[in-house]
Amino acid sequence: MTHTSSPVSSAELDEIYAFAIDLGKRAGKLLLDTVEKRIDGGSAGDSALLASEEKDSSVDIVTQTDEDVEAFIRTEIQSKYPSHKFLGEETYAKGSSRDYIIDSHPTWCVDPLDGTVNYTHLFPMFCVSIAFIHNHVPQIGIIHAPLQNQLFTSCTGRGAWLNQTHRLPLLQKPSIPPLPANAPSGCIFACEWGKDRRDTADGNMYRKVESFLNMAAEVGGREGRGGMVHGVRSLGSATLDLAYTAMGAFDIWWEGGCWEWDVAAGIAILQEAGGLVTTANPPEDPDTAPIEDVRLGSRLYLAIRPAGPSETETGREGQIRTVREVWRRVRNLDYSRPGS
Amino acid sequence: MTHTSSPVSSAELDEIYAFAIDLGKRAGKLLLDTVEKRIDGGSAGDSALLASEEKDSSVDIVTQTDEDVEAFIRTEIQSKYPSHKFLGEETYAKGSSRDYIIDSHPTWCVDPLDGTVNYTHLFPMFCVSIAFIHNHVPQIGIIHAPLQNQLFTSCTGRGAWLNQTHRLPLLQKPSIPPLPANAPSGCIFACEWGKDRRDTADGNMYRKVESFLNMAAEVGGREGRGGMVHGVRSLGSATLDLAYTAMGAFDIWWEGGCWEWDVAAGIAILQEAGGLVTTANPPEDPDTAPIEDVRLGSRLYLAIRPAGPSETETGREGQIRTVREVWRRVRNLDYSRPGS
Repeated sequence: MTHTSSPVSSAELDEIYAFAIDLGKRAGKLLLDTVEKRIDGGSAGDSALLASEEKDSSVDIVTQTDEDVEAFIRTEIQSKYPSHKFLGEETYAKGSSRDYIIDSHPTWCVDPLDGTVNYTHLFPMFCVSIAFIHNHVPQIGIIHAPLQNQLFTSCTGRGAWLNQTHRLPLLQKPSIPPLPANAPSGCIFACEWGKDRRDTADGNMYRKVESFLNMAAEVGGREGRGGMVHGVRSLGSATLDLAYTAMGAFDIWWEGGCWEWDVAAGIAILQEAGGLVTTANPPEDPDTAPIEDVRLGSRLYLAIRPAGPSETETGREGQIRTVREVWRRVRNLDYSRPGS
Repeated sequence: MTHTSSPVSSAELDEIYAFAIDLGKRAGKLLLDTVEKRIDGGSAGDSALLASEEKDSSVDIVTQTDEDVEAFIRTEIQSKYPSHKFLGEETYAKGSSRDYIIDSHPTWCVDPLDGTVNYTHLFPMFCVSIAFIHNHVPQIGIIHAPLQNQLFTSCTGRGAWLNQTHRLPLLQKPSIPPLPANAPSGCIFACEWGKDRRDTADGNMYRKVESFLNMAAEVGGREGRGGMVHGVRSLGSATLDLAYTAMGAFDIWWEGGCWEWDVAAGIAILQEAGGLVTTANPPEDPDTAPIEDVRLGSRLYLAIRPAGPSETETGREGQIRTVREVWRRVRNLDYSRPGS
């Protein structure tokens, strides 16, 4: 069943984009305010936060911040666009179902705080993520990492930007670099250890580590699967992994287990910047299988940075070649949707 | 043989510190300038850089930047302090010996660009690192990550600082948090895949991955070695790993293979902030072996963040407990000093 919602005009989209950018800036500022309270000790009014810290119940700080920032974003959106749907991480987490609920209606998909572990420890790699989705397509993406002083924004047809001044990917002149001829060698590979740490034979943790090893090992090693990537990076934020892939700083991001609010804004930004997103799990024949567009609710993602042409292939051809080279080296991950 | 060089007065140290901070700022600015040239395309004068980028010989850009920034730092130091010794990564790399050459004389130990892979790909986690060492003790540390807009500075007795305004570790009020009672659970564990990717049975790559797995796996898993750390992070810069450990953002950093210029400034900053640094390789009996101070040239490092007291132990006791818990979970790494 394909239902299509009435189109949004170009002028309307411009207005929504401006609203979303402002909202992302203000939400990031809220996150930063809670950090500053924690650093400076704050006044009597912050005693709850400080008491939490003292008791090492840092989980409480995160939950409170998550809820406060999501409530702020939801209120602003519902006030400005009462007909739009809203899907937030906190709201969804409290529901009973894990069904994928985004339909063709104009929908905001929001993670008030991605990188919660980083936030707790004050490692700067945390952010707010706001996406506007219409007819199943993420059209606007806003990612604000306030302690990094980085604001990533995009809107269909308007480009993807860092801090509203630098077009993504960052390296544009004289041209966007092609992917390395021997990719994944020469690439920065971003991946995450995630939360599934069960010591189960052939479970997700071991499948991930086997995949990381194949990507990292010397060429010729690992029974021919060694990818000798230039570097392996783990930041603890799926959202920022996608943002840095859109920026061109990471060449490849491969991950399972994320939810739609973790990736919706990042996918919007990456695609608008010229990147490619498909599924993490390799098909039966990675050499010939079609490269299907990512499904937002699939929980399995493989992203390739924007790429320019080389002397022998288009940028898109280089991306597809890189997808296949990754698929040859990674294992299937088991992150089905509970209840689906 | 222990030779001690004549002491540096407090006033002299203040002057050297002010000089070092200024030098770190200017060197970071030089790095940033080369980045901006790459982003904006630059003018005709930058054609060499751009041509390199076109040919994908990004190694040339790194080498040129490394050499230029090191030459700038060396010239400034030799002009201001002609009697001091200078050890720079580039200078050393061109020499024929890999001996540890820092003695008791006032010595500057400099990495003009740490995180070279990140720099090449424009991932912001790169920095300049400047240490001043006297009588074998790193006394001043300067780490400047210009694209992160982060300047870490320290001097013995003067505290450790972020951007000269925030004392390290960042969480100070009401008190510096103790290490978790069940560490490494609850900790952020920073580690790096490094450059040794040889597919050799029980080689460094496999010993590292086995150690990462032990730290990451659920408690009770991995035959009792599962550490269930809160998160595993890999940034691609040993220097910034140390800086974030001093900041308190990382709890544990474990690595082998670094050289003295990679870690000298970071160790100065971490120690001044109250952190602990010892060897990465577990002793025969990790439960009772003495916790020896790190040797700068050892190439094996285990760092624990600054920690406050809990109700049952001092901060130092918590750090020692955490060191032993890490040692129980990690393998010995083979990074001897060539020729030693």
